[in-house]
Amino acid sequence: MLKAKIFVQLKPSVLDPQGKAVTNSLHNLGFDKVLQTRISKYIEINFDSDDREDVSRQTTKICDSLLANPNTETYHFELEEIKS
Amino acid sequence: MLKAKIFVQLKPSVLDPQGKAVTNSLHNLGFDKVLQTRISKYIEINFDSDDREDVSRQTTKICDSLLANPNTETYHFELEEIKS
Repeated sequence: MLKAKIFVQLKPSVLDPQGKAVTNSLHNLGFDKVLQTRISKYIEINFDSDDREDVSRQTTKICDSLLANPNTETYHFELEEIKS
Repeated sequence: MLKAKIFVQLKPSVLDPQGKAVTNSLHNLGFDKVLQTRISKYIEINFDSDDREDVSRQTTKICDSLLANPNTETYHFELEEIKS
């Protein structure tokens, strides 16, 4: 079995209003060393397959077709073996 | 400067309805090797400080007080130096 560990992040040029809100809250709570906060999605998908090439191709398709918005987001992923 | 890379994940015992919905969508799209999907938050916070011990303590406080729901979520983080 393989696990795909996928990060879907806003492009650096895109404003992250949720991150901005967290930064403001943290300043209000007294955390004044905080400069910036970026909030992203982290997705783990378990595959019933040990074929790294095939799982990598499927994960790319999944990100392109469902998980990431190509207009505003980028993604990267790594594969990890799951010991069952 | 230091960057805290924080993962906030649902406890394994807690149902992840968003992940279940993604798994179902993927099956409908023909990705039948997908067994399970878990969706989590990944948060990066930049600190204007090089004191790892202090930043680590602040990040723990931030997770406990704002980012993670102690009833349903766990978190872990690592610190990384940012070259400016």
